[in-house]
Amino acid sequence: MHHPDTIITSEHVIYHFDASMQGKWRVKPGELVEIRCPDGVHGQIRTETDRYQAVDYDHVNDAVGPIHVEGAEPGDRLVIDIKDIQIPQDWGYVLLIPNFGLLQKKIKEAKTKIVAIRDGHVHFDELRIPLDPCIGTIGVAPAEGRYNTVIPFDHGGNMDTTAIRAGARVHFPVNRAGGLIAMGDAKAVMGDGEVCGTGVGVPINVFARFEIIKGKRLPRPVIETATEWQFVASAETVEQACGLANEDMIAAISRVRGSCWEEAYMLSSLVGDLRISQVVDPLMTVRMAIDKKYLPSID
Amino acid sequence: MHHPDTIITSEHVIYHFDASMQGKWRVKPGELVEIRCPDGVHGQIRTETDRYQAVDYDHVNDAVGPIHVEGAEPGDRLVIDIKDIQIPQDWGYVLLIPNFGLLQKKIKEAKTKIVAIRDGHVHFDELRIPLDPCIGTIGVAPAEGRYNTVIPFDHGGNMDTTAIRAGARVHFPVNRAGGLIAMGDAKAVMGDGEVCGTGVGVPINVFARFEIIKGKRLPRPVIETATEWQFVASAETVEQACGLANEDMIAAISRVRGSCWEEAYMLSSLVGDLRISQVVDPLMTVRMAIDKKYLPSID
Repeated sequence: MHHPDTIITSEHVIYHFDASMQGKWRVKPGELVEIRCPDGVHGQIRTETDRYQAVDYDHVNDAVGPIHVEGAEPGDRLVIDIKDIQIPQDWGYVLLIPNFGLLQKKIKEAKTKIVAIRDGHVHFDELRIPLDPCIGTIGVAPAEGRYNTVIPFDHGGNMDTTAIRAGARVHFPVNRAGGLIAMGDAKAVMGDGEVCGTGVGVPINVFARFEIIKGKRLPRPVIETATEWQFVASAETVEQACGLANEDMIAAISRVRGSCWEEAYMLSSLVGDLRISQVVDPLMTVRMAIDKKYLPSID
Repeated sequence: MHHPDTIITSEHVIYHFDASMQGKWRVKPGELVEIRCPDGVHGQIRTETDRYQAVDYDHVNDAVGPIHVEGAEPGDRLVIDIKDIQIPQDWGYVLLIPNFGLLQKKIKEAKTKIVAIRDGHVHFDELRIPLDPCIGTIGVAPAEGRYNTVIPFDHGGNMDTTAIRAGARVHFPVNRAGGLIAMGDAKAVMGDGEVCGTGVGVPINVFARFEIIKGKRLPRPVIETATEWQFVASAETVEQACGLANEDMIAAISRVRGSCWEEAYMLSSLVGDLRISQVVDPLMTVRMAIDKKYLPSID
């Protein structure tokens, strides 16, 4: 049981991460916050006869927030420390959507599969898949411009990254006062790639604390696990995203080890692992991971 | 200690995987074979003043073989069961090569770093990186055409995949009698991506047994580990390679589970993990992994 200091609900959601957006909730660093997020289609799919064409496209991939974290100023880093993610529902959906997904040319018509959730597992026919919920969309106000919540970019957004799960600490750049974080579009289980365009879509309740690291803004999100730093980047192509993630890792290695760019690049090639987050959103998201034993800090 | 039935050395190497190539060694399924491979530049780099420009480009990325496995016929699958990989040398090289690698635009001049290998680790300055040798280039005669050994494609080749390590069983399509396998270009350690264009280049001695699975040819290599099937694909872009790997996984799921294409695609999105092998060779290689508990067999 968690005893949150603040509960944030879907009474206000956003459909764009916008440089001019305003906070709807205010929380303090360190307090336990519960954020209740609807599923990625905001409850519009409930049976296998509900298909994606019938969905109101203006109300998908909404993100609960924005949450203003007191004291976060441009130039800081905002960390969300994800303590737990609970799924308040005993089923989820998987969708095939025409003109969407890695193999979209093969999809002639939409299809919905409803899967049961019980005993800590998704039940896909007779297969039992252990629950491992992740937050598909999570981001902050961008430095400039306006991004639909389905787009991943430097502010975060629809990164669809399995590593954004309970136990992870996700570091975001603070571009606007308060950071203005928002989140949603969760999956109960999903593979790296999200190839068909969805995992198992579910609502979630996220329990998290926020932390501000003053004056240490980084250009893009970084996921911290117990053992790794994962530099996240999104771009038009996987190759471009890989290049950005690698540059961010090299910069951190150079800062921390004091090594020249070339030596840091070599080290990243030996102990850095490029991983695919998603290849469908429509920008591509990757992360590059390094064990903390080689890079204890990123500052 | 291993007691190989046959020892195969670099007295004969190939620079192309060619549909018309001929076997130089003959081995029987089941016998223990030791294959001694030079490093990826065939010993041309020995000190930090040896740089890649000075290398004879006609003698890089050579592959020891071809090895004719008795009884392998077109339409079969040839499995190499990698029992052990030993590194007969106490150092390795890391290279930066102009016009090569993920961040090649930033590389103005070639650079070589020699790293010590001792006590089961690569020593990169004060960092100790556990040895985890992989075979960078391994493939069979293609069905048609001729591929430089630096190119990865459906026949295998320069896949630079860390998962091709001791303990793995790698399944190849048999296109020509005997399969005609050849290998080389090993790394003592490497991250997924091989971003700078090399890992720690070393010679290796591979200890392996071959196995023929009659009449079960698959279009591309598949890596089998104790717990996973990994469908490997190489293409012009990472996205294209992801699509091929996903199609191969879907086909296997459909064959084994008897499910329709759409259901298999959904399952692959939930429990299939797309992983980057390399983004530099110059075709891109990925693999898509599925736990054997969801897919016990690929036939």
